[in-house]
Amino acid sequence: MELWFTELQTKAHGITTKVKQTLHSEQTKYQKLDVIETEEFGTMLVLDGMVMTTDKDEFVYHEMMSHVPLFTHPRPKKVLVVGGGDGGTIREVLKHPSVEKAVLVEIDGQVIEYSKKFLPNIAGELDNPRVEVLVDDGFMHIHQHRNEYDVILIDSTEPVGPATKLFERGFYQGIFEALKDEGLFVAQTDNPWFHGDLIRKVFADVKEIFPITRLYTCNVPTYPSGLWTFTIGSKQHDPLKASLPEQLAFETRYYTPEVHKAAFALPKFVKDLTE
Amino acid sequence: MELWFTELQTKAHGITTKVKQTLHSEQTKYQKLDVIETEEFGTMLVLDGMVMTTDKDEFVYHEMMSHVPLFTHPRPKKVLVVGGGDGGTIREVLKHPSVEKAVLVEIDGQVIEYSKKFLPNIAGELDNPRVEVLVDDGFMHIHQHRNEYDVILIDSTEPVGPATKLFERGFYQGIFEALKDEGLFVAQTDNPWFHGDLIRKVFADVKEIFPITRLYTCNVPTYPSGLWTFTIGSKQHDPLKASLPEQLAFETRYYTPEVHKAAFALPKFVKDLTE
Repeated sequence: MELWFTELQTKAHGITTKVKQTLHSEQTKYQKLDVIETEEFGTMLVLDGMVMTTDKDEFVYHEMMSHVPLFTHPRPKKVLVVGGGDGGTIREVLKHPSVEKAVLVEIDGQVIEYSKKFLPNIAGELDNPRVEVLVDDGFMHIHQHRNEYDVILIDSTEPVGPATKLFERGFYQGIFEALKDEGLFVAQTDNPWFHGDLIRKVFADVKEIFPITRLYTCNVPTYPSGLWTFTIGSKQHDPLKASLPEQLAFETRYYTPEVHKAAFALPKFVKDLTE
Repeated sequence: MELWFTELQTKAHGITTKVKQTLHSEQTKYQKLDVIETEEFGTMLVLDGMVMTTDKDEFVYHEMMSHVPLFTHPRPKKVLVVGGGDGGTIREVLKHPSVEKAVLVEIDGQVIEYSKKFLPNIAGELDNPRVEVLVDDGFMHIHQHRNEYDVILIDSTEPVGPATKLFERGFYQGIFEALKDEGLFVAQTDNPWFHGDLIRKVFADVKEIFPITRLYTCNVPTYPSGLWTFTIGSKQHDPLKASLPEQLAFETRYYTPEVHKAAFALPKFVKDLTE
């Protein structure tokens, strides 16, 4: 018998991937959580039927979410990650020696627990002494902090289920206030092939609040369409004018200073969503 | 009853897409040819079970295969397309007014016939008077022509079936000789997630023959991994130093002069394949 996991990424299109075994499966307080071992992508974390991360391709999303904003800020000391319970973004954030404290606010403690158990290469830095892990509501956390963070990374699920309110204008206003004067934030904002309307709305909302708003992309094979976007809102520092190191002081598999700049050169139909 | 078409892009991973109806299906002399109407991507051409092109995302591949080399050559007059029976590459080539003649050499006449019938937006320029369509073996055509073409575009299927010999070193040597002194060629070279070895081999082979060798990428949602590569071999003109127009004189949906340059900024793990 062969087992295949199929994620319908739209009502009429999806990916299907061969499964060796199910490692864990439960309904948490917030969502359906599955960890499966796949033949092509290794261990895969699935929330509400959507691929969150896999051993094979996780580095793309985590590197691009972290290093673009952290190299844009001249000296990021205190960083907040909202969501991101798998720990991959935290792992990349810690590669920046200026970071003194990284706070992770994940609403679903089970995501953290089972990532630590089954995705140790991704979650391995969650116990680092520079990290504070809070099982809490990121929306509330943002609104309870003022002038606190240098960089905020919104590493959320899609705008269905627990993450819905993380795509609302009021949330971006809260982020603005939680950031220091030189602060910036980045949010994952889905793909332009199936969710162009979402990108257009988020970009317009962020642009009303932040002086500098930018969209950039990367390729994640297990995410819908393979083309993923991130939206940046920044108070002072423009990611396009960041003074990037000629050579990175740490290993990456996707991010390079050249890729940093190129990621903002948007395909015409994507650029149109920002205008 | 629901019909879904599944393409296994590797032995253990693929895409699945909802089908409204099958428009045509036959075993040609060379391959299995299917034209289906899908809900998400419109009309889809499938050869030997692999998605070749779709109404919704065809523009990416066809624009990126054509405009990058045609803007690199200072004045392309005579262009050869090998494969590409759907006509999409020809359509983009003709947007360059310097092109006096575009020759299409497609081995399978049925691909041309059914593209004209079911994909008129893609194949519509195949009857343009600047186009010469030959139903013939591209490998032979290349070896029968010397110092003839300004730009050669290898718009082939994957290196299985009829296209196998289009990925061999001897073919690239033939291309070198079929090109004029200022000539360059581009070939589609699959994706780096599942076929890194192919990219590495082709790049090394082309580099032995051409003074300038470059790899670039684009995002095609219906192609494996969503990240597609093209390899360029050029005698004199470097696509990275091309003098690009500030504003294009024709409409595009993916290609822009900024995208042209950014497409060569390779993710680290892809860059490693070229070194």
